[in-house]
Amino acid sequence: MLSPVKRVAIIGASGYSGEELLKRLLHHPGVEISLVTSRQNAGQTIAQVYPRFGSHPVARSLRFTDPQVDAVVGQAEVAFLALPHGVAASYARPLIAAGLTVIDLSADFRINDPTVYADFYGGAHPAPELLSEAVYGLPEVHGQQIKSARLIASPGCYPTSILLPTLPLLRAGLIGTNGIIADSLSGVSGAGRKAELDYLFCECNESVRPYGVPRHRHLAEIEQEMSLAAGSPVVMQFTPHLIPVTRGILTTLYLTPSRSITPADAGVFGQSIHQCYLDAYCSAPFVRLLEGAALPDTKNVVGTNVIEIAWRVDPRTGRLVVMSAEDNLVKGASGQAVQSFNLRFGYPETTALD
Amino acid sequence: MLSPVKRVAIIGASGYSGEELLKRLLHHPGVEISLVTSRQNAGQTIAQVYPRFGSHPVARSLRFTDPQVDAVVGQAEVAFLALPHGVAASYARPLIAAGLTVIDLSADFRINDPTVYADFYGGAHPAPELLSEAVYGLPEVHGQQIKSARLIASPGCYPTSILLPTLPLLRAGLIGTNGIIADSLSGVSGAGRKAELDYLFCECNESVRPYGVPRHRHLAEIEQEMSLAAGSPVVMQFTPHLIPVTRGILTTLYLTPSRSITPADAGVFGQSIHQCYLDAYCSAPFVRLLEGAALPDTKNVVGTNVIEIAWRVDPRTGRLVVMSAEDNLVKGASGQAVQSFNLRFGYPETTALD
Amino acid sequence: MLSPVKRVAIIGASGYSGEELLKRLLHHPGVEISLVTSRQNAGQTIAQVYPRFGSHPVARSLRFTDPQVDAVVGQAEVAFLALPHGVAASYARPLIAAGLTVIDLSADFRINDPTVYADFYGGAHPAPELLSEAVYGLPEVHGQQIKSARLIASPGCYPTSILLPTLPLLRAGLIGTNGIIADSLSGVSGAGRKAELDYLFCECNESVRPYGVPRHRHLAEIEQEMSLAAGSPVVMQFTPHLIPVTRGILTTLYLTPSRSITPADAGVFGQSIHQCYLDAYCSAPFVRLLEGAALPDTKNVVGTNVIEIAWRVDPRTGRLVVMSAEDNLVKGASGQAVQSFNLRFGYPETTALD
Amino acid sequence: MLSPVKRVAIIGASGYSGEELLKRLLHHPGVEISLVTSRQNAGQTIAQVYPRFGSHPVARSLRFTDPQVDAVVGQAEVAFLALPHGVAASYARPLIAAGLTVIDLSADFRINDPTVYADFYGGAHPAPELLSEAVYGLPEVHGQQIKSARLIASPGCYPTSILLPTLPLLRAGLIGTNGIIADSLSGVSGAGRKAELDYLFCECNESVRPYGVPRHRHLAEIEQEMSLAAGSPVVMQFTPHLIPVTRGILTTLYLTPSRSITPADAGVFGQSIHQCYLDAYCSAPFVRLLEGAALPDTKNVVGTNVIEIAWRVDPRTGRLVVMSAEDNLVKGASGQAVQSFNLRFGYPETTALD
Repeated sequence: MLSPVKRVAIIGASGYSGEELLKRLLHHPGVEISLVTSRQNAGQTIAQVYPRFGSHPVARSLRFTDPQVDAVVGQAEVAFLALPHGVAASYARPLIAAGLTVIDLSADFRINDPTVYADFYGGAHPAPELLSEAVYGLPEVHGQQIKSARLIASPGCYPTSILLPTLPLLRAGLIGTNGIIADSLSGVSGAGRKAELDYLFCECNESVRPYGVPRHRHLAEIEQEMSLAAGSPVVMQFTPHLIPVTRGILTTLYLTPSRSITPADAGVFGQSIHQCYLDAYCSAPFVRLLEGAALPDTKNVVGTNVIEIAWRVDPRTGRLVVMSAEDNLVKGASGQAVQSFNLRFGYPETTALD
Repeated sequence: MLSPVKRVAIIGASGYSGEELLKRLLHHPGVEISLVTSRQNAGQTIAQVYPRFGSHPVARSLRFTDPQVDAVVGQAEVAFLALPHGVAASYARPLIAAGLTVIDLSADFRINDPTVYADFYGGAHPAPELLSEAVYGLPEVHGQQIKSARLIASPGCYPTSILLPTLPLLRAGLIGTNGIIADSLSGVSGAGRKAELDYLFCECNESVRPYGVPRHRHLAEIEQEMSLAAGSPVVMQFTPHLIPVTRGILTTLYLTPSRSITPADAGVFGQSIHQCYLDAYCSAPFVRLLEGAALPDTKNVVGTNVIEIAWRVDPRTGRLVVMSAEDNLVKGASGQAVQSFNLRFGYPETTALD
Repeated sequence: MLSPVKRVAIIGASGYSGEELLKRLLHHPGVEISLVTSRQNAGQTIAQVYPRFGSHPVARSLRFTDPQVDAVVGQAEVAFLALPHGVAASYARPLIAAGLTVIDLSADFRINDPTVYADFYGGAHPAPELLSEAVYGLPEVHGQQIKSARLIASPGCYPTSILLPTLPLLRAGLIGTNGIIADSLSGVSGAGRKAELDYLFCECNESVRPYGVPRHRHLAEIEQEMSLAAGSPVVMQFTPHLIPVTRGILTTLYLTPSRSITPADAGVFGQSIHQCYLDAYCSAPFVRLLEGAALPDTKNVVGTNVIEIAWRVDPRTGRLVVMSAEDNLVKGASGQAVQSFNLRFGYPETTALD
Repeated sequence: MLSPVKRVAIIGASGYSGEELLKRLLHHPGVEISLVTSRQNAGQTIAQVYPRFGSHPVARSLRFTDPQVDAVVGQAEVAFLALPHGVAASYARPLIAAGLTVIDLSADFRINDPTVYADFYGGAHPAPELLSEAVYGLPEVHGQQIKSARLIASPGCYPTSILLPTLPLLRAGLIGTNGIIADSLSGVSGAGRKAELDYLFCECNESVRPYGVPRHRHLAEIEQEMSLAAGSPVVMQFTPHLIPVTRGILTTLYLTPSRSITPADAGVFGQSIHQCYLDAYCSAPFVRLLEGAALPDTKNVVGTNVIEIAWRVDPRTGRLVVMSAEDNLVKGASGQAVQSFNLRFGYPETTALD
């Protein structure tokens, strides 16, 4: 039996993640969007802010309001927070106190250890008492906990593209905890909908560039989850790049097998990798393990909640190369949050995500 | 005193490298283009095949001919070969025998060891007797030999983007020969001007994808030059990716310092890297070492013969990350070939490359 | 009551329209895809040819076959033809004779008059006896006839973008039949999935160009439908341009009001245009009439079956400027064909098109 | 004999036009850049603001200053103004009074009639006394006047793309003054380097949209120059569109021959158009008249000062369709300003524009 329809608020729905969240939830049979907030767009309908929803009756009638906690509490049972880091926590605290379930797309509750948060985000955590009950919202990994969580910290685009391919290997002890390198290529929507020179068309088009080298904030949550899976601390290398596509992340991972690989047993080791992924993901509807000669391509996942994963053992270097592709706004943000919503409230995992 | 004007033939000038070569040589004060060949475009003027040259008088009058060795020998002193691998050697042999200087943009003469050639290119080398005198045409590295070479094997785009940042470090012993990883992002022009589905606009636009994993042909020449610089064999990891820009290569290199780096001495190690690059390139007109917070961006080098290089020591991982950006068709192909031409015939190194 | 599930064949499903058709029909509750054909992809599964469908069970199991009429007749009640012009008719004839309903995405049955067909397509019509019963499949215009048609000639991208904004005005006599100009900008997918140099990424990226000036084949069907609406012959001007987007058509129409417009009565005339569009489209689910300052933008319709329409009366020139935006592969091709399928078989018009 | 080197100031050099101007003037043998100003970049070197000039010694040493008239007067003989409309005039007045030659890239002095200026730009003209001596800087049209001008009002991108193809036809009386329509497609750099949401990568990529319909400010100067050429007032229709390329404008013009054209004499009329263009532009180095089946393509002119023009007489409609392509930042802005500089100071017209 399906859960009854939930009244849902989307707090801070004026960026690209908010738009994608709206797109999914407007068609979700278990959702009534009761409130959308955005300081800058208050008073406008969803359709005015996002013309592509202009044919949907709710989008034509529902207006953005200023984000006020009282209104959210009064009108919603579930709140999605699409707010900047730091701001999200200030909403989560009273909403949870009032009994709402909160699905937070910011980084505020992804890091268990407030010391690590302070180190990477530069300041004391705004709501440390909630950290112990926050669930890291990666459904393929923490699905059981998500089902009963009050506070789901939905992971971002880079961590998802890196963690889903590596966690099963770390858990199985197939790769070492040293020397993990993630080289990621992100579409520009990952930078958000901000009027900054760096993200103008003419600055991004016909341009490719690394940024945030060598210490990106997302390292905190990536290393946390890797360490949990490995059972010992992981320090890894991560280099993000900006490329001229609107959506999509392609991550290439350089991994060191936990035992030395010779050309002769590269095939056997490859089999164990294959089996490890099958064990982890054979019933995961949104993980697509590529076969044969296929390699990930962002254009095959854009607009979907799917992550593609392929791998190669290099007999020359003895290294394992794993590649993943996802839509940074769907599996890397809003789609994943809806997937957690589905698990949390008993809907089929793929509802509104097909 | 300048060299007299050279009569130059461009053999196989119908692709993107050929076009870029024409662009440069049409304006080179030391060059008279006496012959351009292209089987598929024979009979057409340069301007008909490349409308962007339509205002240049030579481009309006000079017609492509079928590529015939006798005609080249009779009409040119220098031949640029912009031909597929394997085909180039069959032209180089008679042209060199006839006394021409040959600048070859293919891979045919880049690999010193015919066994390695056979391993990576799948067949016996077509002109092994020329290998010993062929000079690997990286002007910043083999400039002295280029000045007197009869046969210059001009390197391709990936190797240039990888070798210029790594060779000084290997020569100086600052990095280890193990564990070198190059992750490269290339514009679509690198695939050439071929009517194949994979390179259609709709297949490349809004798409990012790795290919040729884990064993790309260019590894042969990259490892050869790295091994020469290091004085011992190097086996490295290389992953190319296709991204939706017309031109440009961005390479991110993951390198292991030859001594263990602690957070405390990351700064000192960084200084030694800085000095090493200054020693190698302070008088190289086309190598731009980035300072301060700047990181390479292909849009800053596209259309020029410049390679940008930046580096970061990561105190968390102890690793050295080096990044480079170049135009795959200029520094990564035709511009570099013209640079070698300039060195070979006594022109200022930057002639027709400003 | 819904119609029972139909067994559907897609003939020639290897291009971009075929892919979009598959995407829609794989999720259509009234469709069982019983057969997909493609000479070049015969033997491969849908998922192998289109990796983005790799998570759909039917796409993973159903294999392309060679297109054979007997097999289609035996396995399907409805056939979508996504074949080149001329070829489509050779399939339509026997399929209709065998009692199937045919929805043809080619131009073969869009032109009522075989003389006009011969003039624009260069040869006698291959099945002239079927022309009289073929229905021009523009659901907003010929919806009633579509409901009982055996042969639906689904219109292409340019005609749809031009006809939906002009037919109501011509029917109402608000604009003259002389001097109609349509200036259209099309994404590259409109050229199909063909390995031709002109459509390579490097030839289309950073490029804008007109083509087929001044006589494009689609003029035949555009002028036919305009003439029907106006009740007198229309000859119009049409200039298509290729722009570097994958999907989308933006058409700007220059129209002459049927009476002379002074600055003083531009407002009144604008009102009559507004009313005319409301009368025509207020209950059309896929026509979005823009209000206020809004103008069409392809990014607001891509991926949907919606066409956006806006208009301006220019008091300086007395002219009416109308602009439309659609996705050339959806409302301009496959989505529209599914819309006709829905009308024909009694499904809600928006089924599988939300 | 060449003119001596001129000391040149570039006022407001922080946008895309300023960058392109710098690119040209840094390599101009008759120019010493003595001053570059930019309020927002004051204190930074040219190379810091535009990393792509990072290998040029002047760009590495010359720093932006705050724009102050006294400094300009003291250090320069010629000033290029790359300032917003309205601001430019406030600099031009004192600079001209001090004896400098001013080349203004804004619209401030393009319109002869201050009433028209007020009508289109919304306010009294800031320096009406200079209007009578300002020369509209279209070198192919007003070359003689440019040679002795103190104040050159260099035309913008849309007017150049529209006027060069139409003025000769209007002067020759080959086309009527009624019913002129210009449909233009512009790259995003035309919007300038402004941090606005509308010009973000994600808002422009995969998007095509008209804007400023039906009354764009550039109409004022376009109609002024057309009227001068025709000898009678011209009111025309102009629709600009934004397309996802960085550079380039493609304009399609719909023109009515001054006499009625039948299919039979379309060829004769076409010959007269051809001859008219030859008479106007056979010695213009930057106008490329396309022959045969060729049509303009922005990718053939981007990075150059060339405008491509092609035309077709449509025997079906009796209309003349003319198409042009240019680089909006070069022939449509900075290149054209340098061309005027060359004419004004006796340099070959193509200096620094090859």
